[in-house]
Amino acid sequence: MSLVLIRKTAPTEAWLAALRDACPGLDVRVWPDTGPVEDVEFVLTWAADPGVIAGFPNLRAIFSLGAGVDHILKDSTVPAALPVARMVDSSLTMGMVQYVTMAALQYRRGWEAMRASQREGQWRRPELGGARVGILGLGELGGACGKALAALGFEVAGWSRSAKDIAGIRAYTGQDQLAGFLARSDVLVCLLPLTAELENFLNRATFDQLPRGAYLVHAGRGEHLVEADLLDALDRGQLSGAVLDVFRHEPLPGGHPFWAREDIIITPHNASQTHPATAAAHVAANVARARAGQALIGQVDRAQGY
Amino acid sequence: MSLVLIRKTAPTEAWLAALRDACPGLDVRVWPDTGPVEDVEFVLTWAADPGVIAGFPNLRAIFSLGAGVDHILKDSTVPAALPVARMVDSSLTMGMVQYVTMAALQYRRGWEAMRASQREGQWRRPELGGARVGILGLGELGGACGKALAALGFEVAGWSRSAKDIAGIRAYTGQDQLAGFLARSDVLVCLLPLTAELENFLNRATFDQLPRGAYLVHAGRGEHLVEADLLDALDRGQLSGAVLDVFRHEPLPGGHPFWAREDIIITPHNASQTHPATAAAHVAANVARARAGQALIGQVDRAQGY
Repeated sequence: MSLVLIRKTAPTEAWLAALRDACPGLDVRVWPDTGPVEDVEFVLTWAADPGVIAGFPNLRAIFSLGAGVDHILKDSTVPAALPVARMVDSSLTMGMVQYVTMAALQYRRGWEAMRASQREGQWRRPELGGARVGILGLGELGGACGKALAALGFEVAGWSRSAKDIAGIRAYTGQDQLAGFLARSDVLVCLLPLTAELENFLNRATFDQLPRGAYLVHAGRGEHLVEADLLDALDRGQLSGAVLDVFRHEPLPGGHPFWAREDIIITPHNASQTHPATAAAHVAANVARARAGQALIGQVDRAQGY
Repeated sequence: MSLVLIRKTAPTEAWLAALRDACPGLDVRVWPDTGPVEDVEFVLTWAADPGVIAGFPNLRAIFSLGAGVDHILKDSTVPAALPVARMVDSSLTMGMVQYVTMAALQYRRGWEAMRASQREGQWRRPELGGARVGILGLGELGGACGKALAALGFEVAGWSRSAKDIAGIRAYTGQDQLAGFLARSDVLVCLLPLTAELENFLNRATFDQLPRGAYLVHAGRGEHLVEADLLDALDRGQLSGAVLDVFRHEPLPGGHPFWAREDIIITPHNASQTHPATAAAHVAANVARARAGQALIGQVDRAQGY
């Protein structure tokens, strides 16, 4: 029986080595060289083409290469009963914690203003940005980011669909508490999963509930953001700036208005990446669980979409 | 009896309010309006002119407004027997932790390269900087910075004169272990006190013991750094860049070669500041200790110079 790795745009050598090491009994293959489709027990994938997964009749489970699973769930040909697991990887989490921490600190400490002052040869202390961070999404990544920011002196709140209790993070839950959460957030960090109802969540109505001059850090999915609403909120001064790691079209096309904005910082979808060496252990654990008929680590609730 | 605040270049209102609140029985005055010099029991100072402190014959102790005390100790007219205390302030510590974390993360994550890519309209993932941070000086500030960086996935070592045992920080002690410490540090963070023997510590010989392409974060004192040696190490590629918060002459003079370097990031000595609201409690505690004849919190060993 085999596991097929589907990773079309990046090298696979490190993954193969790590998986063969972590799962000694498993035949690991790289799509499209899958061998007999009947033998494929697991798929480990990032953005397989629609229909590819459905071509394996004896799958036990689908593993995402990243924290998000929207790329799997949007393929309507994937059998509804198949368990799907997001990636849970300490390196992936740490990468996101570093990214969000850097983004929040550079805002709080006026990094861009200091860089501009240096270019002008001016010794000038910048104004501080606000300390109240609000994290949209308190899963594996959001919770870890919140704890790190709280340890660095930020006042951290988080908003999630279901109630969470994380030390140092003030929890807001559900639609009822969204307005209160937004009203107290100088920095809005988006780490939401991409579901149908959360598409376009970062829109004018959301931005307008933040304190005037608030800052956006977006490392969720491109589809969360209404791009025109962001530009408008910046132009109106409702937002003072944004750090964006994800976009509707990646790479962000040349000539896109985001590129030239002084108030938008673009990073090339590198906030966080799964590291084969640490992630392969997670895959191995889920292989064993799937074969034993147990729930997977990071198993997705497909009705909720994440 | 009174405490005299000597703070020549910044507003004193917040300090007065905080001190009067924290030390209700104490007459707090602002230099040069000291009242009778015989009544002055304490001085709380940043960079008093030489001779000013010696003008108070009945002092019990001298408190620094900052973490450093070199500005007090270099005044040879200050009586040698007077206890001197550095500032210990949670806000001061947190400010430095934020600054060093920001400096290390922007190096590690290629922030400047990403900013340059955006200016060119290029979607390009930067190379990562090294993860091994070495902190020179493991006092109140260095220890806190090290713990924060370790929690963010950095491999942290520290070098200090006396042996330290701090969770998550590999300790190197004394001159014997300096070479080993430098050889493993991709990022060298200077938080040393300024003493006679540590002046010019950041020089060519030090830089040349770092791994090639190492990065400097300097938030100690301007006098630690041999400026020409930094420029030379950058030009030779021995160092790949530096973040500097302190300079021999502040504000950094116009036309200084640091301003125009792409590989030097200048911040205007704002890494960390003492906050009256939190620091006044420290002063109040030391007032009580000095009157009781106890050792001060943060008391300086004047033979060591810090």
